[in-house]
Amino acid sequence: MTIARTDDIAAQPATTLKLYELAGADEAVRFSPHCWKIRMALAHKGLGAERVAWRFTEKDVIAFSGQGLVPVLVDGEAVVSDSWRIAEYLEERFPHPSLFGGDTGRAVARFVNSWADGTLVPAIAKVITLDIHGGIAAKDRDYFRLSREKRFGMSLEAFTADIAAALRGLRQALGPLRFTLRQQPFICGAAPAYADYCVFGMMMWARCISPVELLDPDDPVFSWRDRLLQAHGGLARDAPRVK
Amino acid sequence: MTIARTDDIAAQPATTLKLYELAGADEAVRFSPHCWKIRMALAHKGLGAERVAWRFTEKDVIAFSGQGLVPVLVDGEAVVSDSWRIAEYLEERFPHPSLFGGDTGRAVARFVNSWADGTLVPAIAKVITLDIHGGIAAKDRDYFRLSREKRFGMSLEAFTADIAAALRGLRQALGPLRFTLRQQPFICGAAPAYADYCVFGMMMWARCISPVELLDPDDPVFSWRDRLLQAHGGLARDAPRVK
Repeated sequence: MTIARTDDIAAQPATTLKLYELAGADEAVRFSPHCWKIRMALAHKGLGAERVAWRFTEKDVIAFSGQGLVPVLVDGEAVVSDSWRIAEYLEERFPHPSLFGGDTGRAVARFVNSWADGTLVPAIAKVITLDIHGGIAAKDRDYFRLSREKRFGMSLEAFTADIAAALRGLRQALGPLRFTLRQQPFICGAAPAYADYCVFGMMMWARCISPVELLDPDDPVFSWRDRLLQAHGGLARDAPRVK
Repeated sequence: MTIARTDDIAAQPATTLKLYELAGADEAVRFSPHCWKIRMALAHKGLGAERVAWRFTEKDVIAFSGQGLVPVLVDGEAVVSDSWRIAEYLEERFPHPSLFGGDTGRAVARFVNSWADGTLVPAIAKVITLDIHGGIAAKDRDYFRLSREKRFGMSLEAFTADIAAALRGLRQALGPLRFTLRQQPFICGAAPAYADYCVFGMMMWARCISPVELLDPDDPVFSWRDRLLQAHGGLARDAPRVK
């Protein structure tokens, strides 16, 4: 298994990458699942970046990107938003080690990303949404509550009223991942790559902002998550969590 | 877009492949989703095969494979069962054109296969199980009813009692595929490969054995299915369906 390490940074071209990341009330807590995809992608390629804390309501701060969501990556003159487009950009600009393993691998990773966003985001949201509300900056709370209550069609409290049922639903939704991980250590095979980070980002979302444990220790998904927590020098393992 | 065509067969080594496929009461109706994955994989590689009709209860006929399910591929001395293992075997033995696009593509395709088997099989089963019972050979019906009623924990009739709800559930389950196909024509990118066939096999399962239309014509999944029906000289489009 080969995993890019921090000391691979010297092998990459000199860069001044800047990554805008969603932060909690505690600026050290960076919990966005989509930002985590890119954190892991940067580590995969041995790239450092200046990490800028951003809050939901600071739309003006990233207005230069032409939209209002993070992650936003700035690379000299280049400004890229949307985690998928950022991953493609990084792959093009810093080809090795590859995030996708070629065109087919990239295309199929997009399916995994769609599955993570479409299936896991709503399943995990039912567990952690109230914890997110509690962990974000005070100035973000009204925005978060209003936008999410509109999306869910109910109050945050009603949406997260049955955490036990939500955990059962999540663990069932993880079935295809569980079955895959019974055959191989990572979604991408012997070593992790972008399809793994797309799903792992969801786990880091919960880990950074909520005390609830999503997984059973006997679950192959738990062991996979643990391998990724240790990857790239323990970057994810050591990331600050909400207190 | 490059799609392997029947006239590529000449480019492959001389072979005498034999594929055991599940057949209906009408022997021409070959409806197993897992056999369809391999039909498409063979066509992808421009390979012909002797296709042997097999029924659920003919366990003795494939006992030489050491297990009781199809597809079973026989290639000279080699006997391979389980569709995933057959796909890996074909990729190894006939590398071009590739089914996976490399090791990462293969690993991530396994996730798509797990998703198809774990999510789509049960969702489609709720629509077509009674049609399967009606379309299989008379001698298979008791076996099918008993084994499926045990699996589902209810009668076939109860399991398929609300087809409209089952269709809504299926179309919702297809969300990650739909989102992917809004970005690219195939799961594997510009041209189909094995991850596409894993999911398309599910569609052929329903198409061959049931009159129920699974998809809305406005659905990107419908258009993708149509492209695959036309692929490889219209192999799937022209496949016999139950009358």
